[in-house]
Amino acid sequence: MRTGRLETFADGVFAIAATLLILNVDTQIGEHTSDLGNRLLAIWPSYVAYAVSFLTIGIIWVNHHALMDQVERADRVFLFLNVGFLLVVAFIPFPTRLVAEYIQDEGATAAALAYGITLTATAVMFNAMWFYASVGGRLLRPDHDPAAVKGITRSYLPAPWIYLAMTLTALIDPTLSVILYGAFAVFWVIESSVFGRTRMRS
Amino acid sequence: MRTGRLETFADGVFAIAATLLILNVDTQIGEHTSDLGNRLLAIWPSYVAYAVSFLTIGIIWVNHHALMDQVERADRVFLFLNVGFLLVVAFIPFPTRLVAEYIQDEGATAAALAYGITLTATAVMFNAMWFYASVGGRLLRPDHDPAAVKGITRSYLPAPWIYLAMTLTALIDPTLSVILYGAFAVFWVIESSVFGRTRMRS
Amino acid sequence: MRTGRLETFADGVFAIAATLLILNVDTQIGEHTSDLGNRLLAIWPSYVAYAVSFLTIGIIWVNHHALMDQVERADRVFLFLNVGFLLVVAFIPFPTRLVAEYIQDEGATAAALAYGITLTATAVMFNAMWFYASVGGRLLRPDHDPAAVKGITRSYLPAPWIYLAMTLTALIDPTLSVILYGAFAVFWVIESSVFGRTRMRS
Amino acid sequence: MRTGRLETFADGVFAIAATLLILNVDTQIGEHTSDLGNRLLAIWPSYVAYAVSFLTIGIIWVNHHALMDQVERADRVFLFLNVGFLLVVAFIPFPTRLVAEYIQDEGATAAALAYGITLTATAVMFNAMWFYASVGGRLLRPDHDPAAVKGITRSYLPAPWIYLAMTLTALIDPTLSVILYGAFAVFWVIESSVFGRTRMRS
Repeated sequence: MRTGRLETFADGVFAIAATLLILNVDTQIGEHTSDLGNRLLAIWPSYVAYAVSFLTIGIIWVNHHALMDQVERADRVFLFLNVGFLLVVAFIPFPTRLVAEYIQDEGATAAALAYGITLTATAVMFNAMWFYASVGGRLLRPDHDPAAVKGITRSYLPAPWIYLAMTLTALIDPTLSVILYGAFAVFWVIESSVFGRTRMRS
Repeated sequence: MRTGRLETFADGVFAIAATLLILNVDTQIGEHTSDLGNRLLAIWPSYVAYAVSFLTIGIIWVNHHALMDQVERADRVFLFLNVGFLLVVAFIPFPTRLVAEYIQDEGATAAALAYGITLTATAVMFNAMWFYASVGGRLLRPDHDPAAVKGITRSYLPAPWIYLAMTLTALIDPTLSVILYGAFAVFWVIESSVFGRTRMRS
Repeated sequence: MRTGRLETFADGVFAIAATLLILNVDTQIGEHTSDLGNRLLAIWPSYVAYAVSFLTIGIIWVNHHALMDQVERADRVFLFLNVGFLLVVAFIPFPTRLVAEYIQDEGATAAALAYGITLTATAVMFNAMWFYASVGGRLLRPDHDPAAVKGITRSYLPAPWIYLAMTLTALIDPTLSVILYGAFAVFWVIESSVFGRTRMRS
Repeated sequence: MRTGRLETFADGVFAIAATLLILNVDTQIGEHTSDLGNRLLAIWPSYVAYAVSFLTIGIIWVNHHALMDQVERADRVFLFLNVGFLLVVAFIPFPTRLVAEYIQDEGATAAALAYGITLTATAVMFNAMWFYASVGGRLLRPDHDPAAVKGITRSYLPAPWIYLAMTLTALIDPTLSVILYGAFAVFWVIESSVFGRTRMRS
């Protein structure tokens, strides 16, 4: 099976999951209020959560693209690893809403844990896809660049551990863990923009 | 009519239906609660229902792809059989929510029946599409593999009956029927991953 | 501008509008109820409304496809006629919910009028797109079939008047007008399936 | 990286954001009412807000297309500028709902400001993408038309300032600023339809 339709389906899920995030912001504004201005300022964690999750889904999209660039064909196992991966990506709007609603609250720890577990699961599924496709060159393009493949492996492998560490941070300080989720996304964008140029195939 | 735009439309519906499933989980969390941790644990049927329905839509997507692989062109009847098929697929998020919300409740039978009827209808519409396209090779590629076509027919035909049996199980034990829906999806993924390799065109 | 990206955008709006219809059914089920079975039977107008609107959007999709088949390129006016057309198509889920919720109620006339006005506007915008593209062959493929173009014009022209007539019927009998909307969709599918074969380009 | 998958992702976000707008209209109708007809007339600002935002997203889509027409490839910085751009576009349904709900109310200023800030941010991100891609011809097609590129630059540059001015108008008269948002969209469509013909390639 060619990978074209897999990419269409994945891009659809990414785009919808990202765009649904705004419904969470909408929910936070709640019932008709007589002081809209202050209500809009009070729900600032919703905007931050929206931006961090949108950016995170954007990063996942870019990485999925880089991965599929090296993959030539898909078998059933790879298709279902993708479905499992998309299942956790499409879950992201839910913990995003929890963080937005509960971060200034006694529910902060549970919310930050739920968010971190979801992102950790995303990173685990991403590695599962990549290892299944790349070990022994199973599904890679015949002309794949071995250096690029090794580089991808090296940059993906630590992600689940980093997310797990940030998730566990929530047990001590949920606000800190949420700051780390955001900082990691911003760091990834900057690092990848600065150093990505040389790593990428033109 | 070429089938490209049909696949785009179908993939859009699959991706949206799957991604909308998360809204049901969101609904179960309900109003602001002072004990988010326990609330998150209490709604575990929502996560299971989310995963089973997402996986089921993923399986439908893979099967739709396998079917369209053998089909070369579409006429009006085939287009509308597809619309009818997508109509029942897009319905799945609704009974998913019912099962998640009512399975531990006196509404369990009604919810499990609604879920089973929807999946049975999906399987019936799938067979209708396939038989219309394949009988006498009506819409198949001129170079289709007769063995592959027979294999697909043999593997699709029992699906409506299996889903009907699981649906009727709900009348006796709704929990059992829901477990069967999930087990069938997992079984299908494993069976198709293990044996699919030899059946699939490379 | 080539029409490829226009079709992608339109197919996205069709697929999302159709899939969002299920949210209306979900809304009708309302809060947690102790008698789910009867509640599911009581909201039967929701299922009918869902099916009729899904089918109607499916018909619109098929017709949009047939139209774009004759069109080779798009200018700004045509793009914005498309945006206006999609604007009314994406509006369909709203009156669908109104009909589902109010058809057995004193709000039936208003709901049936809202539904009919939306479908009439869809038909008007469809004709506007087609006339802009086809008059003098402005945007048509150089090798378009003049007979096919005339056939399309003849079959689209009456649609706004038919929908207007059904809409006005709502002033006398809203239930009848809703039955007519559904019957017209089913009729269209059957007529086009039976006679479409000869009209279509293979 | 080729730009094809970027366009798919962007078109997905545009289509979903536009189609989600109808949920805001649906929310305004609220609980079951015994006088649906008057309720439908009373929420007329929702229809206007829906139409203006749908049209605005349509304009953004057309402009994004015109921009991508000149761009040949994407690097990481450009990808993330796009993600940031889509992040603000996907935000539009939220202030649209605020304007629809609060424009006849004491919250009108806050709502009109939120709407204007979102559109200003969209225009800023659009310029950022374009300047990154076009300065020194960084990502442009080798055969890009220098006159077309200059024309695009000239027509995009004032947009953030125009939106900022309309946003600030909300501090004096929120209704006026909302009328200006709508008038600007309509003006853009007409101007671009009349004069776009000569400016466009082919």
